[in-house]
Amino acid sequence: MTLAAQSEIQIDNDEVRVTEWRLAPGAATGPHRHGMDYVIVPVADAEMTIVAPDGTRSIAQLKTGQSYFRKAGVEHDVLNESTTEIVFLEVELKA
Amino acid sequence: MTLAAQSEIQIDNDEVRVTEWRLAPGAATGPHRHGMDYVIVPVADAEMTIVAPDGTRSIAQLKTGQSYFRKAGVEHDVLNESTTEIVFLEVELKA
Repeated sequence: MTLAAQSEIQIDNDEVRVTEWRLAPGAATGPHRHGMDYVIVPVADAEMTIVAPDGTRSIAQLKTGQSYFRKAGVEHDVLNESTTEIVFLEVELKA
Repeated sequence: MTLAAQSEIQIDNDEVRVTEWRLAPGAATGPHRHGMDYVIVPVADAEMTIVAPDGTRSIAQLKTGQSYFRKAGVEHDVLNESTTEIVFLEVELKA
């Protein structure tokens, strides 16, 4: 059985929603589609497995404080197949 | 003489600008006014001194991954009077 990712909303207003995500080893977000453009800010060094809707797998190295931007519409599952916790903030842009 | 804060733009598009700021012990940003609403994401535990335009000083404890939101119009100087480096991302919301 797959562990669930843990999420906590830190900010939620008219402009932005900021959610902290934590994935313990073995955890997954489950497949999801991003409804808003977003910025990811890793707050721990970690290795993340991304599974596309067609099953294609890729590995992303998250580096503390190294952000990246993605457009709305991205669909994927995010898994932690490593031995260290994944922690990042998702900054969703509402405007 | 005061050290300058170091900044590096990580993302800059129509919606958002993300800047990494590093303040070594003794460094300061210099007085500035925020032109956009913004989110701060600390990526290190640190202590930050904030000086308001009237000279009022306050101390903020930055906790890794604990974000906060501020509206445009904030004016202050930001100093590192501690012995450890301050590192945070500033996410400015353009929309």
